[in-house]
Amino acid sequence: MAQLPTYDDVVAAAARIRGQAHRTPVMTSRTVNEALGAEVFFKCEHLQRMGAFKFRGAFNALSRFTPEQRKGGALAFSSGNHAQAIALSAQILGMPATILMPQDAPVAKVEATRGYGAQVVLYDRYTEDREQLSRDLAAKQGMTLIPPYDHADVLCGQGTAAKELFEEVGALDALFVPLGGGGLLSGTALATRALSPQCELYGVEPEAGNDGQQSFRSGQIVRIPTPQTIADGAQTQYLGALTFAIIQRDVTDILTATDAELASAMGFLAARMKQLVEPTGCLGFAAARHHKDQLQGKRVGVILSGGNVDLQRFCNLQ
Amino acid sequence: MAQLPTYDDVVAAAARIRGQAHRTPVMTSRTVNEALGAEVFFKCEHLQRMGAFKFRGAFNALSRFTPEQRKGGALAFSSGNHAQAIALSAQILGMPATILMPQDAPVAKVEATRGYGAQVVLYDRYTEDREQLSRDLAAKQGMTLIPPYDHADVLCGQGTAAKELFEEVGALDALFVPLGGGGLLSGTALATRALSPQCELYGVEPEAGNDGQQSFRSGQIVRIPTPQTIADGAQTQYLGALTFAIIQRDVTDILTATDAELASAMGFLAARMKQLVEPTGCLGFAAARHHKDQLQGKRVGVILSGGNVDLQRFCNLQ
Repeated sequence: MAQLPTYDDVVAAAARIRGQAHRTPVMTSRTVNEALGAEVFFKCEHLQRMGAFKFRGAFNALSRFTPEQRKGGALAFSSGNHAQAIALSAQILGMPATILMPQDAPVAKVEATRGYGAQVVLYDRYTEDREQLSRDLAAKQGMTLIPPYDHADVLCGQGTAAKELFEEVGALDALFVPLGGGGLLSGTALATRALSPQCELYGVEPEAGNDGQQSFRSGQIVRIPTPQTIADGAQTQYLGALTFAIIQRDVTDILTATDAELASAMGFLAARMKQLVEPTGCLGFAAARHHKDQLQGKRVGVILSGGNVDLQRFCNLQ
Repeated sequence: MAQLPTYDDVVAAAARIRGQAHRTPVMTSRTVNEALGAEVFFKCEHLQRMGAFKFRGAFNALSRFTPEQRKGGALAFSSGNHAQAIALSAQILGMPATILMPQDAPVAKVEATRGYGAQVVLYDRYTEDREQLSRDLAAKQGMTLIPPYDHADVLCGQGTAAKELFEEVGALDALFVPLGGGGLLSGTALATRALSPQCELYGVEPEAGNDGQQSFRSGQIVRIPTPQTIADGAQTQYLGALTFAIIQRDVTDILTATDAELASAMGFLAARMKQLVEPTGCLGFAAARHHKDQLQGKRVGVILSGGNVDLQRFCNLQ
């Protein structure tokens, strides 16, 4: 394996995204502190541009393109926040972007991605091979594929959120982070070990898709079928090679949250903190609530990773 | 009429509430700016303690009680945010509070008010006279009645939100403020005329309850039946004598918003800014959207006055 990125790369990413990514606020709530018996600091990535932390990694990756790569543009396959993050970053940097999406992706996501100026190529997920399709597009049109998490520039960009959090609130006793493919968690790990080395760091997955927990505990990447969960941003089947190596080295443990806990956490954040957070974005808070007995009197960080939930869907889950 | 309060009283209120009321954030959104063609600054009072600006005025009023008054405690009649604001302020200041609520008030509001340690007295709104009841309670038990808006200490407390807004973002071209009984608007007017004298200042009422607009345009307080509107915090029947005098002198105009515009604004704020704002709290933003043609290129303030909407109700309105 290539050398793992370090906190220095997170610092470099922070300089690249400055003025483009929002320095999102850190929110606190007396109600939450009383409910958990801890002092909780929420890093509000649902208030990031395009509504999720993904913009950090995408913009960092695209801003490192060579002039040649910029001409060819960026390619991504995603029906979620990564697609919009790549599309918006490419638009800002003045390069073309192509996003491969399944034909049955929600129209709203397709429209939002097109709204950021990207070309959307729809494919049939039952008859076409996405990986082959993207390799062909990349080769023929000189595009550079940016994967959603297993890429040093992407994960270092995601790590800038935790860097900002520690810079603002100082060292923490524990930090809870949503876990899908591991981009956010591994980047957060680099920042945590540099800025708050004693902090316990927890990745949190949907219970139905605990491949990360299995991988962490067995010491090798475990693959699972696409999990059924309301946390649509964490329906990944396996961690990346890079993200797993960092997670294995730097993370305290991987926890899980049930869909019921996610829906409850989402309702609590809306009713009490007036914040709309998508189910995946609630993973960290759901686990912190579940494990509050171990958090009494502690300083606890929670990353709210995104807010892109359709209002109708939000309401159906309440 | 007694002498009208001045901006100096708002400054004094700001000193009293410091460290107790949140200095709420000012949010901006590229999406909103593009949609309106203006630079919009949202003063986020839905993130104030107990979820609305009302805490500012209540705390200011109660903190001016004499030792004698503190012993007797505070009395309010309200089934909304004012009740909770008085209850919480009394709790913080260590004095008793009694809140008169109709027997058919929502259980959640009664519970929330009791949760802040207040005694809730339920009355039958069809057979009992609220005003008589509160006078009796005040006289017999030495309690001091704090009305929801027509009181100098209350309205000067509410004015601290606009003071903070101007201190943070500088002068504005226009400012849009929800209007019920006029506490928030009149306090805002004192701050506006002192800190951004050229700023156009608009109060915004529900279309179904435009008593303020009628009063403003006719030059005398107009009373209307309780209006039917989703803006339950602005179902007032008439402005106060104090609030009207300041509004008449300092406000540019009174506008209205329909329930449909409020529901649409509420959905927009949730979907695009991830903020849960109650219907009354959306009045200012709804009017700014409606009148955006007159706001092109301008610096526009909007007060989001509260976020206390039941999630079920929020969803029913989407």
